[in-house]
Amino acid sequence: MKNKLILKPYKKEFDYSYTSGAYATYELIEIKPEIVKAVYIHSRYSNKEEMERVCRDNKITFLYDDKTFIRISQKENSYIIGVFEKHSYILDKSKPHVVLVNPSDMGNIGTIIRTMAGFNIHNLAIITPAADIFNPKTIRASMGALFRINFQLFNSFEEYRQIYSRHWCYPFMLKGEICLNIDNCSEGNLFSLIFGNEATGLDESFLGIGTSVKIPSSDLVDSLNLSIAAGIGIFTFASKNGLI
Amino acid sequence: MKNKLILKPYKKEFDYSYTSGAYATYELIEIKPEIVKAVYIHSRYSNKEEMERVCRDNKITFLYDDKTFIRISQKENSYIIGVFEKHSYILDKSKPHVVLVNPSDMGNIGTIIRTMAGFNIHNLAIITPAADIFNPKTIRASMGALFRINFQLFNSFEEYRQIYSRHWCYPFMLKGEICLNIDNCSEGNLFSLIFGNEATGLDESFLGIGTSVKIPSSDLVDSLNLSIAAGIGIFTFASKNGLI
Repeated sequence: MKNKLILKPYKKEFDYSYTSGAYATYELIEIKPEIVKAVYIHSRYSNKEEMERVCRDNKITFLYDDKTFIRISQKENSYIIGVFEKHSYILDKSKPHVVLVNPSDMGNIGTIIRTMAGFNIHNLAIITPAADIFNPKTIRASMGALFRINFQLFNSFEEYRQIYSRHWCYPFMLKGEICLNIDNCSEGNLFSLIFGNEATGLDESFLGIGTSVKIPSSDLVDSLNLSIAAGIGIFTFASKNGLI
Repeated sequence: MKNKLILKPYKKEFDYSYTSGAYATYELIEIKPEIVKAVYIHSRYSNKEEMERVCRDNKITFLYDDKTFIRISQKENSYIIGVFEKHSYILDKSKPHVVLVNPSDMGNIGTIIRTMAGFNIHNLAIITPAADIFNPKTIRASMGALFRINFQLFNSFEEYRQIYSRHWCYPFMLKGEICLNIDNCSEGNLFSLIFGNEATGLDESFLGIGTSVKIPSSDLVDSLNLSIAAGIGIFTFASKNGLI
């Protein structure tokens, strides 16, 4: 993106996206300086010098253009925007994974990424169709933790499974065969914690894959919120394996 | 509310609020029929007969008025609205509590309520100022579980503490003195799990109250999302005490 290019409100088909707010932008620059295309600083931003210095240190173009902030019309007013190239990774075959099957809510994906970073699980598989991991809303919900993890998209769960066949699968399901507790969690790094779509969960075929897990709960609610279920599962497995 | 009254987009000062969607409205009618003032059914709703029957069985007025659905301009299209009187409760002195100090996000409050119902903790104290527990967004995030719990608002934590002085307090804090795990959780019903505001957490004064708890996590993130931290805390204490 040259200085002349006009930043537009995000669309999924763009080959770039952007962070909104100083916190996520500092995370972006610190962790992945090589993908940053430019940083926009609002004239009213209170700590311009520090942001300019960090950009200069990382040889990142910075611009003052208040109209850009109006044009992309963010819900929350922020005074910093960090534009970056989209990127993707190959997951680490020797580390634990989280697998989200058809997640539909950007807030949930972002919150789960933040939780993963908090509990030192750094590899995320997303089975499409899925909400856009690069949407600024997802990045905001992740508090910039998106830049701390590896993620890879797959067209089907089978595609994921073929490549990462050594991981023992734990699909989280209302009908799961074991109840989640720390004694039930496997030891070692080769596990995949699998969570389904917000409305439909995982389909019954997952009952035949690995060891299905139920989070014990009352019958007063149909199910837990996806990011809550993932948070509890990730915390319990991370605790068992000394990741935190 | 008489049939003539026109339902307006929700405001905090109203003495009534409304559910949006069939699921939450059925929850409302099943659990708290006495507070329901009316149910609006959209002409395009697919299962009118069943909703009419449930309203009749509970002596609840139902109306067909598609304009109401346009007027309150909900983000998500729903075909059912359930209008109810605001209500509040006194917490159960013999049961465990969750205490939210100055929560600012309606989605978080709703998600925490859904989680509480899922893990059989039914008493919620909210220390004001706080986001509106009756806002339709909170109710939607709770998936109607708002009607399953007792909640009570307090002007300060001290006010709560004076009334419910027998509960042992567990403030969740980044500097907490013990790490959360199932062995550390108290047994018995008289505990209060306390969580701070999304941006600021609990202030340092809470380090001197009860036993402060830290959820162990990496230093890659500043903190966990509030509803994730609460979900993990509630799950762990509920597991220890056989609530689930």
